Amino acid sequence: MTLNKSFQPTIRDIAREAKVSIATVSRYLNMPEKVRKETGERIQRIIDKHNYRCNFAAKALATQRTKTIGYIIPAVNNQIYSECARGVQDEAQLHGYQVFIASAEYNRQREKQMVENFLERRVDGIILTVSDSMGDIAQKLYQEKIPAVNLFNKQGCLPCVSVDNVQASYDATEYLIKLGHKSFAMLGVPFIASDRCRMRYEGFLRCLQDHDIPTHPQSFVQVSSNTSDCSEGIEKLMNSSNPPTAIFASNDLVAINTISALRRLGFEIPKDVSVFGFDDIPMAKHVWPPLTTVLQPGYRMGRQATSVLLDILRTGEHPEETIPSVQHDLIIRESTGVPPR
Amino acid sequence: MTLNKSFQPTIRDIAREAKVSIATVSRYLNMPEKVRKETGERIQRIIDKHNYRCNFAAKALATQRTKTIGYIIPAVNNQIYSECARGVQDEAQLHGYQVFIASAEYNRQREKQMVENFLERRVDGIILTVSDSMGDIAQKLYQEKIPAVNLFNKQGCLPCVSVDNVQASYDATEYLIKLGHKSFAMLGVPFIASDRCRMRYEGFLRCLQDHDIPTHPQSFVQVSSNTSDCSEGIEKLMNSSNPPTAIFASNDLVAINTISALRRLGFEIPKDVSVFGFDDIPMAKHVWPPLTTVLQPGYRMGRQATSVLLDILRTGEHPEETIPSVQHDLIIRESTGVPPR
Repeated sequence: MTLNKSFQPTIRDIAREAKVSIATVSRYLNMPEKVRKETGERIQRIIDKHNYRCNFAAKALATQRTKTIGYIIPAVNNQIYSECARGVQDEAQLHGYQVFIASAEYNRQREKQMVENFLERRVDGIILTVSDSMGDIAQKLYQEKIPAVNLFNKQGCLPCVSVDNVQASYDATEYLIKLGHKSFAMLGVPFIASDRCRMRYEGFLRCLQDHDIPTHPQSFVQVSSNTSDCSEGIEKLMNSSNPPTAIFASNDLVAINTISALRRLGFEIPKDVSVFGFDDIPMAKHVWPPLTTVLQPGYRMGRQATSVLLDILRTGEHPEETIPSVQHDLIIRESTGVPPR
Repeated sequence: MTLNKSFQPTIRDIAREAKVSIATVSRYLNMPEKVRKETGERIQRIIDKHNYRCNFAAKALATQRTKTIGYIIPAVNNQIYSECARGVQDEAQLHGYQVFIASAEYNRQREKQMVENFLERRVDGIILTVSDSMGDIAQKLYQEKIPAVNLFNKQGCLPCVSVDNVQASYDATEYLIKLGHKSFAMLGVPFIASDRCRMRYEGFLRCLQDHDIPTHPQSFVQVSSNTSDCSEGIEKLMNSSNPPTAIFASNDLVAINTISALRRLGFEIPKDVSVFGFDDIPMAKHVWPPLTTVLQPGYRMGRQATSVLLDILRTGEHPEETIPSVQHDLIIRESTGVPPR
């Protein structure tokens, strides 16, 4: 079958057949109340007959609004971002907005390109969870006065919906200390790919220091941000002179991979090693043992970020007050326990 | 901070400052070789100075191409679709295309609306995995000659990249029969929400019939497509007069929830009941017990579907030959075993 490249009738075709100007058809589409009733009805009949679909490109030029939100996420395979995307979509849908999702896969170059692509397509606003730890992207959006909201971690001057990443990690670490653990490690993705991970490491370190527990450079083990594979790092860590009895992972995917790697090496969880995650993705309760983790309410955060963005679009102003942190919670399941004697 | 509603300079501003017509700036942006060198350089200097971003809406009107692909998925929280989305993005990126993802959350009304939204925004083509079991959406795209490719299951006349869903389920069921199982059930989402599930049920039934294993209406248990929660269905099934020793789930999410529900009821897997999944999502090997499942290579399928779509865009023709099925594979892990004595 040969496809017709211009597969749809244009506004010109509609105007010709309705015997009105293109401007009149355009006016009818955008402000129907400003067109005479009989003319409007005639145009509508022809639109129906040809199954004409308003050319959004033309409409966007006329109204300066596309009713579109761009949402940039760091990875499609991490359920925390899909939970959140569900929230963004539901809230946007309620207000007649369409969401386009794009995933940068922890690649800073792609992030920049995606922001440019969204702007070229004149989205009305952008929600972003980016890797860019320098905050360049957020800074640029702010300077160009483009309506934008950060999700999961704040960058530059943009409004942000997130938990307090430092405090949440502090609380998780303190829980492990209270169980009696004295030897710790944290596994996480490179800070350059995730500012969230940097903040969580900060909370982890601060808590250990407050409890006079010594830390060493080896206490942070870096894993690849794409695969979350950590077999090699775990093997090295457990063969070191001071293997940890408790591991705090920067997110649930890393925690789940850590548990698998430990089990392959013959360790039992939590008998030999406790593992603490971050996110509470839907899968966390199904892995074995069910994962102890920090809950961030992804779906609710997605709705809230969208609501903040829609407010900005409505008022034309960035919010004056700081948005309070979203409440985190510790979900204690079976991957943590007292340290071995 | 008050945001400037028209936050970027327009083509009109650039033309005024460069002392040329809007048409000349437009020509320079789309066909720079058709503009005199000095004029082009002057325009470029002004573009650079103002950090002018080509208005994609205007460009799309001029070129009839947006270099954009729309990808509609049924759910963001199922990793098979995120694996696939990674593939779509990588292949599109290679060829200078941008992908916008939209999730319909198994809602047929939303699917229709998303297709309309993509078309209004003049995407160049659409890749879709839809719930619409009637094939109305696919049929409409075909009739309107819109470049489109199905992923995971074929509908109407659209080209499709998928495994042979019937045969794959047949193979999985036969594996369970060879282990010695005689009493079966299948858990799946409503057929109206997933034609893939209907085909998998067909393969399951056909295999049981070929092996003279009796089937009853209760052998299919329906679960909600959004939550994959199946506690209630599983409880009823296991309390029935003929509880299964082997359960085939229509996808890995359902299988993982089935295992959790069975364990809550005190059953051991695979000692009491074997559970077989479908997809081999990255999480399948991390759950407990690691999941036996049908592998469909989501990432590779995403790349292939995109490649088929780009071919259509290049040639203006739908492929003549049928695209051969993607090869499936049985991944045997620990959630299946011989039936209890």
